[in-house]
Amino acid sequence: MSAAENTKKSEEKAGTAKAPPYKLASLFGRSEPSVFDLGRGVSLGGREFIVMAGPCSVEADPQMLGTAWDVKMAGAHLIRGGAFKPRSSPYSFQGLAEDGLKMLAKARELTGLAVVTEVMDSADVDLVEAYADVLQVGARNAQNFSLLKRLGQSRKPVLLKRGLMNTVEEFLGSAEYILAGGNEKVILCERGIRTFEPSTRNTLDLSAVLAIKERSHLPVIVDPSHASGRASFVPPLSKASLAVGADGLMIEVHCRPEAALCDGDESLKPGEFQELMAELAALAPHFGRSLSTVPPGAAQAVGQ
Amino acid sequence: MSAAENTKKSEEKAGTAKAPPYKLASLFGRSEPSVFDLGRGVSLGGREFIVMAGPCSVEADPQMLGTAWDVKMAGAHLIRGGAFKPRSSPYSFQGLAEDGLKMLAKARELTGLAVVTEVMDSADVDLVEAYADVLQVGARNAQNFSLLKRLGQSRKPVLLKRGLMNTVEEFLGSAEYILAGGNEKVILCERGIRTFEPSTRNTLDLSAVLAIKERSHLPVIVDPSHASGRASFVPPLSKASLAVGADGLMIEVHCRPEAALCDGDESLKPGEFQELMAELAALAPHFGRSLSTVPPGAAQAVGQ
Amino acid sequence: MSAAENTKKSEEKAGTAKAPPYKLASLFGRSEPSVFDLGRGVSLGGREFIVMAGPCSVEADPQMLGTAWDVKMAGAHLIRGGAFKPRSSPYSFQGLAEDGLKMLAKARELTGLAVVTEVMDSADVDLVEAYADVLQVGARNAQNFSLLKRLGQSRKPVLLKRGLMNTVEEFLGSAEYILAGGNEKVILCERGIRTFEPSTRNTLDLSAVLAIKERSHLPVIVDPSHASGRASFVPPLSKASLAVGADGLMIEVHCRPEAALCDGDESLKPGEFQELMAELAALAPHFGRSLSTVPPGAAQAVGQ
Amino acid sequence: MSAAENTKKSEEKAGTAKAPPYKLASLFGRSEPSVFDLGRGVSLGGREFIVMAGPCSVEADPQMLGTAWDVKMAGAHLIRGGAFKPRSSPYSFQGLAEDGLKMLAKARELTGLAVVTEVMDSADVDLVEAYADVLQVGARNAQNFSLLKRLGQSRKPVLLKRGLMNTVEEFLGSAEYILAGGNEKVILCERGIRTFEPSTRNTLDLSAVLAIKERSHLPVIVDPSHASGRASFVPPLSKASLAVGADGLMIEVHCRPEAALCDGDESLKPGEFQELMAELAALAPHFGRSLSTVPPGAAQAVGQ
Repeated sequence: MSAAENTKKSEEKAGTAKAPPYKLASLFGRSEPSVFDLGRGVSLGGREFIVMAGPCSVEADPQMLGTAWDVKMAGAHLIRGGAFKPRSSPYSFQGLAEDGLKMLAKARELTGLAVVTEVMDSADVDLVEAYADVLQVGARNAQNFSLLKRLGQSRKPVLLKRGLMNTVEEFLGSAEYILAGGNEKVILCERGIRTFEPSTRNTLDLSAVLAIKERSHLPVIVDPSHASGRASFVPPLSKASLAVGADGLMIEVHCRPEAALCDGDESLKPGEFQELMAELAALAPHFGRSLSTVPPGAAQAVGQ
Repeated sequence: MSAAENTKKSEEKAGTAKAPPYKLASLFGRSEPSVFDLGRGVSLGGREFIVMAGPCSVEADPQMLGTAWDVKMAGAHLIRGGAFKPRSSPYSFQGLAEDGLKMLAKARELTGLAVVTEVMDSADVDLVEAYADVLQVGARNAQNFSLLKRLGQSRKPVLLKRGLMNTVEEFLGSAEYILAGGNEKVILCERGIRTFEPSTRNTLDLSAVLAIKERSHLPVIVDPSHASGRASFVPPLSKASLAVGADGLMIEVHCRPEAALCDGDESLKPGEFQELMAELAALAPHFGRSLSTVPPGAAQAVGQ
Repeated sequence: MSAAENTKKSEEKAGTAKAPPYKLASLFGRSEPSVFDLGRGVSLGGREFIVMAGPCSVEADPQMLGTAWDVKMAGAHLIRGGAFKPRSSPYSFQGLAEDGLKMLAKARELTGLAVVTEVMDSADVDLVEAYADVLQVGARNAQNFSLLKRLGQSRKPVLLKRGLMNTVEEFLGSAEYILAGGNEKVILCERGIRTFEPSTRNTLDLSAVLAIKERSHLPVIVDPSHASGRASFVPPLSKASLAVGADGLMIEVHCRPEAALCDGDESLKPGEFQELMAELAALAPHFGRSLSTVPPGAAQAVGQ
Repeated sequence: MSAAENTKKSEEKAGTAKAPPYKLASLFGRSEPSVFDLGRGVSLGGREFIVMAGPCSVEADPQMLGTAWDVKMAGAHLIRGGAFKPRSSPYSFQGLAEDGLKMLAKARELTGLAVVTEVMDSADVDLVEAYADVLQVGARNAQNFSLLKRLGQSRKPVLLKRGLMNTVEEFLGSAEYILAGGNEKVILCERGIRTFEPSTRNTLDLSAVLAIKERSHLPVIVDPSHASGRASFVPPLSKASLAVGADGLMIEVHCRPEAALCDGDESLKPGEFQELMAELAALAPHFGRSLSTVPPGAAQAVGQ
């Protein structure tokens, strides 16, 4: 990566090759970006551009299984869906908890895709680990250090979202908590920061992808759905994320956005997602990436 | 409170007397601000202006006991001190955990003052409850909804700090999680929000005290130490907090700030704190408050 | 001022007594805060707490004269009112221009109070100078360096508002433009910065008063009306401004807020302003200030 | 544009087809984006992706002419360079004023490229118009309404930069000032907003391009150089800007960045710029754009 090389060069020039406070997350003493397995044969951080897709929250079997099948057929690599939902009101839908996790497991069985889902409390890590392939930490828990420490003891990859008010350096500090516990598989996810601008839910900070790549070997993905809160903004922001050098995307897709219990306004319909995947697949080689829209393992799954 | 009355009037005028999403935290169906006991005879939300003081983190017996005695003699109502410290780096001092809680309990025994200390994880609530009189939720956990739900089941008062990027309405939403669980004793603490201004650590938002009073019956205190990160700013900001209508303060005091393991730059020395307390006591009646610098229960404690 | 002394001491300790980029605005080589005359015998920066009051915009003779008389009788030291209005839409009321300036001059004649009013363009400085005692630069022009340079050649005091996105250091850089031109009378005005919080129009940054006092000899006033956009917030924020160490206030008062062409929601009624002035006068001595509610020169004016 | 269509549809659905406060800038009553001439045969807003490039400030003949020739040979459509520089300190280099404008005119003569340069004061508009093809309004003057009104009377296109703290709606309000004066050629330029994140100078808000396209027919370009303040970030952010739907770019190029009087850290070297242009040219067709790296009018110019 040229940004990483650049940093190294300027460090050498300055003779300041000291480790930053986030030593394990940093490029210190490393020459290569991290590449690791997310389960089910999906590898993140390398040439393949990885897409995680699915509904904001797991709502019911038909919704989850229908959407899972749709995103798989469009070429997504992982299914996302929330069973534990962090909501700013206690009276909003809080997720289906273990019932939701079971639906995600069924969706994995059906599609063969690995599952990424959020864990909100260190006390729930065992439970979520039993069902999920990748454990997600939400933006509001980005500095829940107890949870991060607990995840350092997990052997499952952790997808860490940037806090709405976290600097890039703090974000890497949060990642360091997980790495310091012995878990080397941390995925960083830029999902927008809070600013004064009201036309999008948050302000997607694509420069942060570059600022991270300059400092860290960890893979970085972008979540344009939560950042913008607008379905129509998701396709162009997805392409911009690929262009800026992200390693992948997390995208909300819902088979019936207008009926979604949560965040319907930002969800793509399956047909829109399929179209976006085709466009991304065509663009990927121009950015040194590859993306196939033939569903991974489709032949076998379909063949059964 | 005139702000509260104002809101009611405008609601009546508009015929919109509907409950907001944070119904229990709101003024809906209430005519009085909440007043409740924090333990050891200290009542918050009424005429008395309440001051919580102590070191950022509990470090050792002499530091904790010395500082506790100093703040008590200056008239503080509660002792503060962190046994679990949320730090942005895993390699920074993380607090003494249960050992720290024990020192806080000793300090209470010595001074007769109630203790407020942070809890960072729902799994630690039982432990912290066993030692503390008031449970604190830090700014970085302001939307750790699992922790908030767990604290709804506690019978101890909860001091909830505003998240660095939380709006007033979200802050009340977080309070609602605790109230909805059945715990009616929630203290809101304004401690600065994150902005672009670098001359203070955060930007203390004193207007938020007014915005909360306009919407909620809950008591509001201000933490000028963490907000500014500057000891010399703490006295004037404390007076401004009293002037704007806060119900109390949380202030960092350390017997040797230059040797503090954490946040020494923002800690007052005991003598500075004593001077500030005297000034606040003189000002309080001008704002409809009372504050005595005779230590609560000093006679008895000293008499033994 | 103790904050200034503190800085000096820490500079001496560090041996870094170098001038900052805003040398003339800084405390470098100075031992005293600036005190200067605003016209009509009003002196700012000393013991007297100075209040400027009046409508957001000059609308008509009766409105302007009525309000001017009201604020004078309540003890205000200057009349404010905009003849040139910076509005975010070209179709909003843009001010009465020279007609407005004439009304302000009449108000001065009637009340004997000096006049502060905004100038938006270097080409208008001659015109506004012909009528006003103090020239105001609005928040949106805080980095209009052409205008600032032109005002450096004026001999009238300049009231410089902080830009909505300006740091304290940039604010002092803007002041330096005026000082570098030879005009020594610069008044800094904190009026809120832009943040994510929607419950007030902007976020009043009272810590900035301290951050400025620590760096600069220039007087600082606070405008709680524009900062909050809420009339009911103005009295408590005014008291907090006095408490934090500001040298004065700028407050919107309108004889009929509900009919104001601009910013009626944030304007106090004359009776409310009078009550606030009485409260401030009672508080001032506690903060080392004096404020009289007997109108300056009232005897003569009334006697005629 | 599908975003525009979307808005129209939702407006029709809601029956709210009312003009917004920025009526002339809006899509109200229009079906097509604006396409207009920038001089020298360059048309903005259509299929051609337009690139403006050059040094931050005009420093000397060889620097300006050398850089102008370099950017022309790489395929840039306009030369940029500042003769009037808005600097936060009065002691920083303020630009060469008319001498700088003359150098820009020479650069145009040499290369045949149109010139875009900043005007900071309404009093300077006549002067700058005499030399420039496109008049730029800087971020700090984005709400200098006097200047905007004066530019409404110009017949030259105006490149309006977004203020560091301006919302998209305010940005369109500023454009409306120019349009309302009768000048239909307004170019909007996203150049980053101010946030808490320090790893880039400002936070480039690429979602704003989408938010503008959804509301307005005006062309939008992106300035990744000023937004990031980092030369190494400029190429990926440029590609992301193309990907998100911008109509063009403004990029800083300096023949010797290390010796630049202003903003050298963010300037590309001519070779880097050439490489970027080649990459953009290869990508453009994938985003429905065209970009040629054969210098416009190169044959003639070179042929002489």
